[in-house]
Amino acid sequence: MTARNVALGLAAALLASSALAQSAPQAAPTRSSQRAAPAPPSLAGLQFLYGSGEAAALSRQTYAALEGYAVAQAAHRPADSVVLAEGATLGAPAWVPCGDKPLAVVFDIDETVILNAGLMHTRALQPGAPRDTTVLPVPGAVEAIRALKAAGITAIFNTNRTTNVTDGVIAALVSVGLDAPVRGETLFLNGDDALRANKDGRRALIAGKWCVVAMAGDQLADFSELFNRIPTVAERRRATLEGPIASEWGRGWFVLPNTAYGTALKGELDEIFPVDNRTKDER
Amino acid sequence: MTARNVALGLAAALLASSALAQSAPQAAPTRSSQRAAPAPPSLAGLQFLYGSGEAAALSRQTYAALEGYAVAQAAHRPADSVVLAEGATLGAPAWVPCGDKPLAVVFDIDETVILNAGLMHTRALQPGAPRDTTVLPVPGAVEAIRALKAAGITAIFNTNRTTNVTDGVIAALVSVGLDAPVRGETLFLNGDDALRANKDGRRALIAGKWCVVAMAGDQLADFSELFNRIPTVAERRRATLEGPIASEWGRGWFVLPNTAYGTALKGELDEIFPVDNRTKDER
Repeated sequence: MTARNVALGLAAALLASSALAQSAPQAAPTRSSQRAAPAPPSLAGLQFLYGSGEAAALSRQTYAALEGYAVAQAAHRPADSVVLAEGATLGAPAWVPCGDKPLAVVFDIDETVILNAGLMHTRALQPGAPRDTTVLPVPGAVEAIRALKAAGITAIFNTNRTTNVTDGVIAALVSVGLDAPVRGETLFLNGDDALRANKDGRRALIAGKWCVVAMAGDQLADFSELFNRIPTVAERRRATLEGPIASEWGRGWFVLPNTAYGTALKGELDEIFPVDNRTKDER
Repeated sequence: MTARNVALGLAAALLASSALAQSAPQAAPTRSSQRAAPAPPSLAGLQFLYGSGEAAALSRQTYAALEGYAVAQAAHRPADSVVLAEGATLGAPAWVPCGDKPLAVVFDIDETVILNAGLMHTRALQPGAPRDTTVLPVPGAVEAIRALKAAGITAIFNTNRTTNVTDGVIAALVSVGLDAPVRGETLFLNGDDALRANKDGRRALIAGKWCVVAMAGDQLADFSELFNRIPTVAERRRATLEGPIASEWGRGWFVLPNTAYGTALKGELDEIFPVDNRTKDER
């Protein structure tokens, strides 16, 4: 495949991606009842994620932590995968057992392993701007995945891009320097099971065959669909910090920053900043 | 100090804070020559940092990594601090030696240890909105700092808030559950030396007395002022990822996400998304 074909394949895959297409409306900041005018798509989110040294460092730091954790886990073979078992809750988690299954780490793809810099650039420009097909690795991702392979740990990709763009997804991963994954073995897409964009079914399938020592993603639903069933912004945030799930972050579950689109960009001002009634009463 | 006094002290400290005041203009996204209208302050950045489960998880993950790294380092006493020595460069780093100095971790404060949720809420509302004085801990920060203390590692705070608000800074840290730091011993502010907002001098002072096993901040200048001397957005990002400095992230230097204000929110679209000349020529 020539460089040109890679670029065209990527563009087709990205622009057809249902995951990114679905998330596009979330990329625009929500209009707040307390603000005079609706905000346009956030340049600040693009600056942070695609332009800043801070986000680059944060991503590299996340992959350093993931690599260190996964390699250490592999050395003593954990009893359980970091994939929640069927029927588990966030408050009372239970995990799929590892048995003697081979070791793996499960990765989301978009804004977890690759940065869709070109697509985001195109979207931020005025209509009719030339299409930019640049795909970049998330800082640290390629080095970490290579280190995992050297330690006998297989990288498995679980994406909400749809099965009709499988070739483009594979080309995107190869273009940043990764081995080509194999669909149904080390690559799972939206449409590979009946649950469509709900990744829990594919996670169960993967954990049935592999001992999953770590997972990485930029959305809470990359770890469990249970987060998406939580109705309010404040409760969803609280669910990440309370109870046994809180200790998963950085110890099995690894989050990459996505300030360009997705479930982290939600809420009116009074949902982002809940009023502290105690403080209010004392004023 | 009553809860009311803490709140008033915090408000005074926060609103007088030169660090936050200086950074306020950076909170507004830069107008891009390729966009029709200037963007208002980004609700998306506030949603991500103060509202999302993703950012909460990312912060907790960072503190889990910092705690694990610092405690492991303390167990074998490293030869060097993670503070760059005078005259070092990012390309050829050299470090302040540890000798037999006591162990410490150096923390920035704002959006590293505490979230200025109230101040950011007030700023996002229309003029004349009631002042909100809520200060929250960055998820994971208090637990990690307590664990460091139990491991014999002292938390030292190096902030660009100015010396005239020292009492408010101390009250803010105490209000989230931390021990009160002592100015000149475990707390250093803008004005404590002649370099003002340049933290390098205070870092040198701290590393002269302590073996600094880790540093945490939300701005690259929380690690070295050298990053602020880099002229372009793209070069600054590249500097975090190239050469020996790249391996510091997650292994001595720990970044917290700040999508509300600061040096990560810079650049026009063509700076955030540099054109890939190779791809362009092949089109």
